[in-house]
Amino acid sequence: MTDSVDDTIDAFRARVARGECEELTWWHACQARIEAREAGVQAWEYLMPATSTAILPGTGQRLRGVPVGIKDIIDTAEMPTTWGTGGYLVSPEAVVDAAVVTLLKRQGAMPLGKTVSTEFAYFTPGKTRNPQDLSRTPGGSSSGSAAAVAAGMVPLALGTQTAGSIIRPASYCGVFGFKPTVNTVSFSGIKAFAPSMDTLGWFARHIEDICTTFTALTRAESIEALPDLGGIRVGLRSLPGDRPLDAGVAQALSNTARHLEQAGARVSALPLDPRYDDLVAHHQVVLAYEAAQSLASEFQQHGEEMGARLVELIEEGLATSYAEYRASLLAAEECRQALSRVFADEVDVILAASAPGVAPPGLDATGDPVYCRAWTLLGVPCLNLPLNTGQEGLPVGVQLIADRWQDERLLSIARTLVPPAG
Amino acid sequence: MTDSVDDTIDAFRARVARGECEELTWWHACQARIEAREAGVQAWEYLMPATSTAILPGTGQRLRGVPVGIKDIIDTAEMPTTWGTGGYLVSPEAVVDAAVVTLLKRQGAMPLGKTVSTEFAYFTPGKTRNPQDLSRTPGGSSSGSAAAVAAGMVPLALGTQTAGSIIRPASYCGVFGFKPTVNTVSFSGIKAFAPSMDTLGWFARHIEDICTTFTALTRAESIEALPDLGGIRVGLRSLPGDRPLDAGVAQALSNTARHLEQAGARVSALPLDPRYDDLVAHHQVVLAYEAAQSLASEFQQHGEEMGARLVELIEEGLATSYAEYRASLLAAEECRQALSRVFADEVDVILAASAPGVAPPGLDATGDPVYCRAWTLLGVPCLNLPLNTGQEGLPVGVQLIADRWQDERLLSIARTLVPPAG
Repeated sequence: MTDSVDDTIDAFRARVARGECEELTWWHACQARIEAREAGVQAWEYLMPATSTAILPGTGQRLRGVPVGIKDIIDTAEMPTTWGTGGYLVSPEAVVDAAVVTLLKRQGAMPLGKTVSTEFAYFTPGKTRNPQDLSRTPGGSSSGSAAAVAAGMVPLALGTQTAGSIIRPASYCGVFGFKPTVNTVSFSGIKAFAPSMDTLGWFARHIEDICTTFTALTRAESIEALPDLGGIRVGLRSLPGDRPLDAGVAQALSNTARHLEQAGARVSALPLDPRYDDLVAHHQVVLAYEAAQSLASEFQQHGEEMGARLVELIEEGLATSYAEYRASLLAAEECRQALSRVFADEVDVILAASAPGVAPPGLDATGDPVYCRAWTLLGVPCLNLPLNTGQEGLPVGVQLIADRWQDERLLSIARTLVPPAG
Repeated sequence: MTDSVDDTIDAFRARVARGECEELTWWHACQARIEAREAGVQAWEYLMPATSTAILPGTGQRLRGVPVGIKDIIDTAEMPTTWGTGGYLVSPEAVVDAAVVTLLKRQGAMPLGKTVSTEFAYFTPGKTRNPQDLSRTPGGSSSGSAAAVAAGMVPLALGTQTAGSIIRPASYCGVFGFKPTVNTVSFSGIKAFAPSMDTLGWFARHIEDICTTFTALTRAESIEALPDLGGIRVGLRSLPGDRPLDAGVAQALSNTARHLEQAGARVSALPLDPRYDDLVAHHQVVLAYEAAQSLASEFQQHGEEMGARLVELIEEGLATSYAEYRASLLAAEECRQALSRVFADEVDVILAASAPGVAPPGLDATGDPVYCRAWTLLGVPCLNLPLNTGQEGLPVGVQLIADRWQDERLLSIARTLVPPAG
């Protein structure tokens, strides 16, 4: 079933139910795909041995037989964790799996390996290359998860986002990436970076699988497409407001706006208060202050081995006063409440750029999360839609954004917009 | 210096500066006090060997030479962690210290041992007894930290609160206990229970030391007493509203109200919206749903060894739908915003009961956190004031509460109210 690595999760389960393939079929197909492509893509920090008993699917049903990649800042009891350090900090095995790993296993998913993360999910790149063009970055920090899903090595992979670490690599690699409302899935057993913003999310090639995984992890009702998007109000917005848009990004936004309108939605420009433009700067203050706290032990013991940009951020955090930090949090809270009123009164979802353009050339940087920072600071759910291509045929994503805890509505709207798989 | 175990941190540092004692003097005095009282109180899960090099104070100044107790759900690289499991889950040493342990060490504090926690900081009691009456509970979940501070074994100890785990044991043991605004100090390396509410805080015998520790951990400006409390508005409130108050608690509230008025404050009853009375129930929904997620791995592997009440909570969480969870979070958010308006327009701080009475007799339960649940759900800072005694001369605390991120103002008001030590 080399073709069926592109099944949706539900289609695979239906094939198993009809006796057309085995529960371990997907696992073996993924291993074959990894064998074919890993030398180029280098998405994996560690792979489960093919003979491991851990490949036996669990007792749950929703994700039964689904191979999944686990970002390497997430604790695993049966695989090592290196937090993207290249080896200066390693845990051969955690005392217990991170909570989300057990939640996945409970539903029958099978962790296939640890995917490459940048150093502690910040900017120092790992070895991973963009599967669409091996000379380009896959984005970060969830580099290996986005690349593994894009290369068809795995149908599902976990990522985390504190600035733009899910939406940006999803945009660069051309896959769906979903960052739910902050704190939707427990961060227990995942290395903290800036705890008020750290959010667990996931990548998939099909919107259906993004929805299935949301249901599996939260135990929400299953998310279905609407008949059409009649009555749905979409606000078009690019943060920060004063940056000129890349032509490919502008094209992706207008294409998507047109598709939304064709499905019945009403799209209009969304003017926001100028205070929103300050959120990028407030995000940086919160990021630096909290990272300097959360990584205090790692900095104390391994500061000399750390990448220059991480050291710079921690030092910036150590120079940030509590008063500045508090002021940025309070400014964010004001915008969060104001944005909730916008969502209540004016729009159902916001359409915005995911990244400043296609994946930049080179492997020594992971691109700019600037279009994600404000949304992450506000804690709202964001979904990258991989429906457009830009310069040199490379993917250009756009994101749909909803108010906090409107994840189901957001996913339902996206599922209506995106043509069904297969 | 057997007497000087009761110094404030600043007084001790001044004595060291004047050459009246050594940097390690307090450490040795604490060890002597532990030797004298630990057989009865049983506050410690693990004690650093007296000869350990870890007792050498760090390079920082604010907490230089201060022995500190670390709650046993907090990772330590040089001491084992058991999470109050009585041994069914043990980590001999963490890969790195929890962030807060490094933040303390950086300021010169010296972790002296791990203090007893209830099982994963929920309700299954550990071995600790109340130093004021060994036949009674010290409260939970930060049982050992509150008891160790109350027994003079250590001037400072870390606790965590997700329901009433700092304020209640502080009230029962008769010490100051401070829960700052949620997410003030990073939870990195601390076992999560319900991440949207889990809050790190600390216990001390002196309000000055609560303030010094706040400054040391956040790098806020130092917190001083005001000239008096003229102009300060205090709202008197007991949540949930329909519970009859214990006579000792009522007396403690009216005594404290009188002291506040004597210092110049204006105290008046604070009528709150009836929706606040539902917060206790919403807290339970959030607690159960998030605990079932966060402890998924521990439940999977050790469910049969877990205490009955924890299993019951996790099963309640597994039976809680995402829709119920979301509804409780949104109800809390409404009250949080409404309470911010109350703090902006009507009162500076709220005065409320810490616990339903003195420490209950017996060691098979840790008392009721009902008076803390709403405040913890709202994420507001709470300080237990140990200024009153009730039935049989046992301590009865009251708490002062401020709006989120008004921690400095809250501590400054408390410092003005409480007579200076020594």
